[in-house]
Amino acid sequence: MKILKRICHSNVGTGGKREVLSPCWEKSGEKGTEKMSGKDYYIGTAKIYVAVDCIIFGFAEAELHLLLVKRMIEPAKGEWSLMGGFVQEEESADEAARRVLKELTGLDKVYMEQVKAYTAVERDPGARVISIAYYALMNIRDNDTALIQAHHACWVKMKDVPPLIFDHADMVCQARELLKRKAATEPVGFQLLPKMFTLTQLQQLYEAVYGEVLDKRNFRKKVAEMGFVEKTGRVDKKTSKRGAALYRFNARAYQKAPKFSIIANHIAHHS
Amino acid sequence: MKILKRICHSNVGTGGKREVLSPCWEKSGEKGTEKMSGKDYYIGTAKIYVAVDCIIFGFAEAELHLLLVKRMIEPAKGEWSLMGGFVQEEESADEAARRVLKELTGLDKVYMEQVKAYTAVERDPGARVISIAYYALMNIRDNDTALIQAHHACWVKMKDVPPLIFDHADMVCQARELLKRKAATEPVGFQLLPKMFTLTQLQQLYEAVYGEVLDKRNFRKKVAEMGFVEKTGRVDKKTSKRGAALYRFNARAYQKAPKFSIIANHIAHHS
Repeated sequence: MKILKRICHSNVGTGGKREVLSPCWEKSGEKGTEKMSGKDYYIGTAKIYVAVDCIIFGFAEAELHLLLVKRMIEPAKGEWSLMGGFVQEEESADEAARRVLKELTGLDKVYMEQVKAYTAVERDPGARVISIAYYALMNIRDNDTALIQAHHACWVKMKDVPPLIFDHADMVCQARELLKRKAATEPVGFQLLPKMFTLTQLQQLYEAVYGEVLDKRNFRKKVAEMGFVEKTGRVDKKTSKRGAALYRFNARAYQKAPKFSIIANHIAHHS
Repeated sequence: MKILKRICHSNVGTGGKREVLSPCWEKSGEKGTEKMSGKDYYIGTAKIYVAVDCIIFGFAEAELHLLLVKRMIEPAKGEWSLMGGFVQEEESADEAARRVLKELTGLDKVYMEQVKAYTAVERDPGARVISIAYYALMNIRDNDTALIQAHHACWVKMKDVPPLIFDHADMVCQARELLKRKAATEPVGFQLLPKMFTLTQLQQLYEAVYGEVLDKRNFRKKVAEMGFVEKTGRVDKKTSKRGAALYRFNARAYQKAPKFSIIANHIAHHS
């Protein structure tokens, strides 16, 4: 009856959304409950290569960046590509995406979300491969420069992204739209910033995500309304002599009152 | 350079969203551009069974319904399940989902959207299978009763959905949330109604989708503001002696001014 409850649960508006949807995104596709029988009931059915590709967003110099690699295998060896890999028999696609990301950046606690599966028969000229795309958000300073160089990877500004192999440009395009939606309703943007940030950085981040200039007074008013963006007492002297106050995202405070509306109007207006 | 343009394009707010996102959802994962080389560059990599499962929503008696089937193969034969099937070598998952839906309902022009891929290693006790879930919206009257019966399928009210096999309840839960988001920003709700409908039916539909009672005056005011929900001049006598005016969704009028806000506030408030 647990199942029934969960579905009915998702009927009850905000509460349902918060309690059912969020857990869904995190949990689903992760741990199976039954033990594998080891038996194959589907012998004779076609099997297909399954890959993951990671759209890794970073934020620096007031601009969104994408982490790209030069593909190291044929076909399309040497061309610009998203970081990807094949899903192994004993891992979920979520686990495969985390493995790939860790291999590339050395980080394992990165915000990731599945975009969707790309399944066109001829999307990969190397063979029939379906690819499950994930987008990740990271603070560029957090990642391991040596590892990234070893993978011939580099951070590219969104506006300078070169032509990418296969359907990777579609993946980036859709990941970008998901990021816009997510950033409007949940405080994922902080994943792209250092632990401590100035309000200017925070505004630049949202301006980069939405590709639009936001009104400074209105933006700061909204931030002030949110109890979970708090002053640290420290000051950033890099940007100006007088310095700018450094803020931090208080996840615990957010959990107590998970109401995020930094640009909800903006999005409602877009809808 | 086309690729670059598309990505940059997606920076420009609404315009970009409409022009880039919508085409993305439709086109991506559909037709490949390059011809398959026939060669397999990835020999030695694990292959995995790939399935599709369809969350088929219908609307009747003022309630959202789900089309479920009694599973006809082992394991879990005879248990309640979403309608699904395996992706064949020469079809995309989108094509597989349409094929499955047509086999079940006889319909091929149904609104469908991918939910996501479910990839937990042990999600299916029959073997390692990843499943790509799709949700479909249909007018219950449109479908082929004989076919549905032949598949031991039936329409079940959301609140009466029985326990489902594997992770199908998660699929339903997430599809429901996607439907809520989509229905707030695009006129997909009309897919669930007959060609001609009363304003009461339209309101009941949105109340069913959101599991909330909407204010009648406010709802009708919003509908009136939208140029693309138009009076047909016909009257529905079923519900009352006096009868209720029948309306229709004018897709062409919507395309001219694609601004849909029947419950945008409602959603902004939820965000």
